[in-house]
Amino acid sequence: MNIEDIVGEVATAVEPHRGEGKVADYIPALACIDPMKFGIAVATPDGGCHAAGDAHEGFSVQSISKVFTLSLALENVGDALWQRVGREPSGTSFNSIVQLEKENGIPRNPLINAGAIVVTDHLIDGNDADAAIDWLLRVLRDHAEDASIDFDAEVARSESETGARNRSLAWFMKSFGNLENDVETVLSAYFRHCALRLSCAQLARAALFLAFDGKDPVTGERILTPQRCRRINAIMMSCGHYDNSGDFAFRIGLPGKSGVGGGILVVAPGEGTVAVWSPGLNEAGTSKVGALALEALVERTGWSVFG
Amino acid sequence: MNIEDIVGEVATAVEPHRGEGKVADYIPALACIDPMKFGIAVATPDGGCHAAGDAHEGFSVQSISKVFTLSLALENVGDALWQRVGREPSGTSFNSIVQLEKENGIPRNPLINAGAIVVTDHLIDGNDADAAIDWLLRVLRDHAEDASIDFDAEVARSESETGARNRSLAWFMKSFGNLENDVETVLSAYFRHCALRLSCAQLARAALFLAFDGKDPVTGERILTPQRCRRINAIMMSCGHYDNSGDFAFRIGLPGKSGVGGGILVVAPGEGTVAVWSPGLNEAGTSKVGALALEALVERTGWSVFG
Amino acid sequence: MNIEDIVGEVATAVEPHRGEGKVADYIPALACIDPMKFGIAVATPDGGCHAAGDAHEGFSVQSISKVFTLSLALENVGDALWQRVGREPSGTSFNSIVQLEKENGIPRNPLINAGAIVVTDHLIDGNDADAAIDWLLRVLRDHAEDASIDFDAEVARSESETGARNRSLAWFMKSFGNLENDVETVLSAYFRHCALRLSCAQLARAALFLAFDGKDPVTGERILTPQRCRRINAIMMSCGHYDNSGDFAFRIGLPGKSGVGGGILVVAPGEGTVAVWSPGLNEAGTSKVGALALEALVERTGWSVFG
Amino acid sequence: MNIEDIVGEVATAVEPHRGEGKVADYIPALACIDPMKFGIAVATPDGGCHAAGDAHEGFSVQSISKVFTLSLALENVGDALWQRVGREPSGTSFNSIVQLEKENGIPRNPLINAGAIVVTDHLIDGNDADAAIDWLLRVLRDHAEDASIDFDAEVARSESETGARNRSLAWFMKSFGNLENDVETVLSAYFRHCALRLSCAQLARAALFLAFDGKDPVTGERILTPQRCRRINAIMMSCGHYDNSGDFAFRIGLPGKSGVGGGILVVAPGEGTVAVWSPGLNEAGTSKVGALALEALVERTGWSVFG
Repeated sequence: MNIEDIVGEVATAVEPHRGEGKVADYIPALACIDPMKFGIAVATPDGGCHAAGDAHEGFSVQSISKVFTLSLALENVGDALWQRVGREPSGTSFNSIVQLEKENGIPRNPLINAGAIVVTDHLIDGNDADAAIDWLLRVLRDHAEDASIDFDAEVARSESETGARNRSLAWFMKSFGNLENDVETVLSAYFRHCALRLSCAQLARAALFLAFDGKDPVTGERILTPQRCRRINAIMMSCGHYDNSGDFAFRIGLPGKSGVGGGILVVAPGEGTVAVWSPGLNEAGTSKVGALALEALVERTGWSVFG
Repeated sequence: MNIEDIVGEVATAVEPHRGEGKVADYIPALACIDPMKFGIAVATPDGGCHAAGDAHEGFSVQSISKVFTLSLALENVGDALWQRVGREPSGTSFNSIVQLEKENGIPRNPLINAGAIVVTDHLIDGNDADAAIDWLLRVLRDHAEDASIDFDAEVARSESETGARNRSLAWFMKSFGNLENDVETVLSAYFRHCALRLSCAQLARAALFLAFDGKDPVTGERILTPQRCRRINAIMMSCGHYDNSGDFAFRIGLPGKSGVGGGILVVAPGEGTVAVWSPGLNEAGTSKVGALALEALVERTGWSVFG
Repeated sequence: MNIEDIVGEVATAVEPHRGEGKVADYIPALACIDPMKFGIAVATPDGGCHAAGDAHEGFSVQSISKVFTLSLALENVGDALWQRVGREPSGTSFNSIVQLEKENGIPRNPLINAGAIVVTDHLIDGNDADAAIDWLLRVLRDHAEDASIDFDAEVARSESETGARNRSLAWFMKSFGNLENDVETVLSAYFRHCALRLSCAQLARAALFLAFDGKDPVTGERILTPQRCRRINAIMMSCGHYDNSGDFAFRIGLPGKSGVGGGILVVAPGEGTVAVWSPGLNEAGTSKVGALALEALVERTGWSVFG
Repeated sequence: MNIEDIVGEVATAVEPHRGEGKVADYIPALACIDPMKFGIAVATPDGGCHAAGDAHEGFSVQSISKVFTLSLALENVGDALWQRVGREPSGTSFNSIVQLEKENGIPRNPLINAGAIVVTDHLIDGNDADAAIDWLLRVLRDHAEDASIDFDAEVARSESETGARNRSLAWFMKSFGNLENDVETVLSAYFRHCALRLSCAQLARAALFLAFDGKDPVTGERILTPQRCRRINAIMMSCGHYDNSGDFAFRIGLPGKSGVGGGILVVAPGEGTVAVWSPGLNEAGTSKVGALALEALVERTGWSVFG
């Protein structure tokens, strides 16, 4: 069966589940999203985009952006990054501070909030958050071949207003000397990159290089070394879904990253990338219907890396 | 380059590192192993065994046995197993009890000690530990096509004598009703399966079905369903090396399981299996030179599942 | 107002609350106690016993016995005891194992389960649990001037049968080398001393020396040095009610020890001792009506050590 | 022996220990204090002040101020305070955030940093930190009959500059809705009250009402109800020295509060108050020589509340 048909089948298969899960409600801009939304897009190396549902509607990618900032930070500072953030799953929820206290302000991995804040710090030179965000936008627009990609200023503002827990994490790491720039500077960039708005189609396209050893298969541009690409995929597999990462690997078997906006990005090495969106979350903060869709897709494509 | 040559190259590459790491010393039978030992064996679907060093010398596989007991327990009780053990990485060391207290006696995954004890409980019917061990031996001998495989009674006895921490874990779970058989019965089987003695060659051969969707590629025998096979591989990827699992995925990119005897088993889906042995451990209890060898092997074979 | 009248007033004051709280139900012998029971007895230095309600009916003193075993262990081994048990409040519930893992098997204080198990180990010479229990009984009968005091064999047996959690704690400490005798020997003594049966009158009388600098004011016998007596009282104040100790000090202001059988013993230095009994417990395992009665008593007598 | 002589004896007794312990060095203003400083002052109900050493030299009282802010907050909001802060010892160090995560942003007690920040929040009306500090100064000057008492602006500024950990604690509680005023407003007051500078003599005098049921025995002014006074003393006993409180009760047997400036205040109900100062701290942050002096004093006066 071809991938276009499979995407259609998957959309049909999850139809009865649409609306399941609990929509994130900590900021109004997320809380008011229609829970019935569902989109799926598969990007393939021939430049194809196989999509269904609301795949071309932008949504708040939230933590999925952490994959792109990790990629940029590695480009900016190289493996020195790993002195200030680990690469182990946390065994705790996305915003836990307990581990930081036990481990001297070094976050467990770059995909939990604390780790992503440290990664963001590595994108910023001379306390200039705007330049970092400009760089990120430029890169994303370039990868996705779509100049319209932007962040949602209203969401970024809301994130900042309700950002007490992230401020606490940032100050905690600051107290251990693990942030170089000012706390509010780092958070200003962090809240904006979490507020990036992309559609499933844009997201899958922007990440396509991760499925092809760091090289965009459409343009031929090398974005990362193969080793660095494999390592980002490994971290997505181990840590991409907070304290739900093991279950995600168990069920879906592909490196991925979820966001509380209801999006999930997964990478099928050598095959392509998939982005799904459905706002209702499971208890661990991963899109419930999105994960179901990916499970159905992997069952049909055989893309699991585990056999 | 063919696999035979690669194995030779890997052995040469790690030669200068032999003896590195710290040999486990909690029981005499492990403490007195020559730290210079090093073996590597790759099993391929054509029935080939590509080996170097001490690849045909038996060693104490310790926790690597947990992969086989997990496979048998799933055969014995099916997905009911997952009601009594999770599948998330623990974020803590191999014998931590902290998580058990927070999560009501349900171990985080089947590959930490507590989880493997629960798995062992699922192998035992009517408090008969001997029958469980007989079954395990029968299956291993069958998979490896080698009737000489056995456990080391002296090691098993030492494990039991120094097993206070595992007794504590077992009684803790018993107090939450998460062990059906008697604590000492379960531990008797647990200590014996940890004392299994296999060579790298035997180990790689016995696990070959895990690289081929649950079907032994040599005999054609189906051992597990493809889905169950993928899931075991996923758990090995997420949880196979205690609190070092993320780093192992980052560096090596293959599902694996390490044991404090210095062995590591890894599965390369669609390609084959690899077993290495070198007694010196890193701080997280994984063979130091063994991991270096696997890193070198994966670099040359391109077998990482991440691209 | 004299103490006899106050005791009567207190009994009247708590009358409307009788039956409140939740009776411990982990063993049948405790679960079947009539929740309406209430007793109070005050022992005074003139040998007087001022009692009301069911003050002469024996009940299972459970953890209150830990005060007496602590006193004996200090007599047996002196300050060497403090190398194997701390004297800080635990900040966790009575049977938590988390702290033990963080602090290398050294329990926080002698009045939580783990600490009391270590204390019991110090009562035992040459693995002889019976001799330790005989000694404890002899001392209690002597202090209380009542040869009928004994433990309840049925309760001790039930404690042992349901003792998985305590076995886990004991094996955990054993794994750190913090138990000298066999685990089952220590627990055999532990379960029996927790099963001691005394009435409020007997309990208050037996502890009277703690209110008078270690000397029994009735017989004139010196039981402890003044310093050791003060220190036991200090530990009761800091740690006597598990994770409820701060609140007990706040409300009642006297050193005390509660047991899940519903008894509470408190020491009023220079004044006397008080034992209350009411089976219903609050969430932290302290007798709910018992604490109310003590609050009423302290309000009337002004015995708080805090002014 | 009279108290004047005892104070002299105590000073002599600790003479050989002067300079022991480790001076707090997280801000320059503390780090540069002469470690040989030692002062002791006893305030008695007749208005007497019995002093030795550097008892009239001002020092940074740091956390000792938390006793006075607790007293004022209870006056300001009454028992409603206890809905937002507990009264149990924490079982962890003074600035731990672990407990806050487990217990939904409610600090364990008012004498650890997080708790004192919540208490400070209760002193502030309408985001006006200056008014709160003015009130505190007015009250302290009144209690101590000394209009010269003030905070050290330089210390307050340094506390704020190095206050990342306290900012983290405050934002963490803010994220749970447990701070009403702005984080920086509350911290501005918090850093200033920690920077209060008093001598031992001033400190003992200012706290004298705590030893006499809430009534100043010299002026006859009632400052607190007897019950509230007892309760503050109880909290000092249970929680006054972070994770060293149990040991302090064990050794000294009086309610007290220590500060990282090297001061300790203790209350001897019905007798008087004692303030000591020696900059070197033990591992738990309590003045090492100060605690020795108090132990010597209590041994000689028999003021322990425990007999």
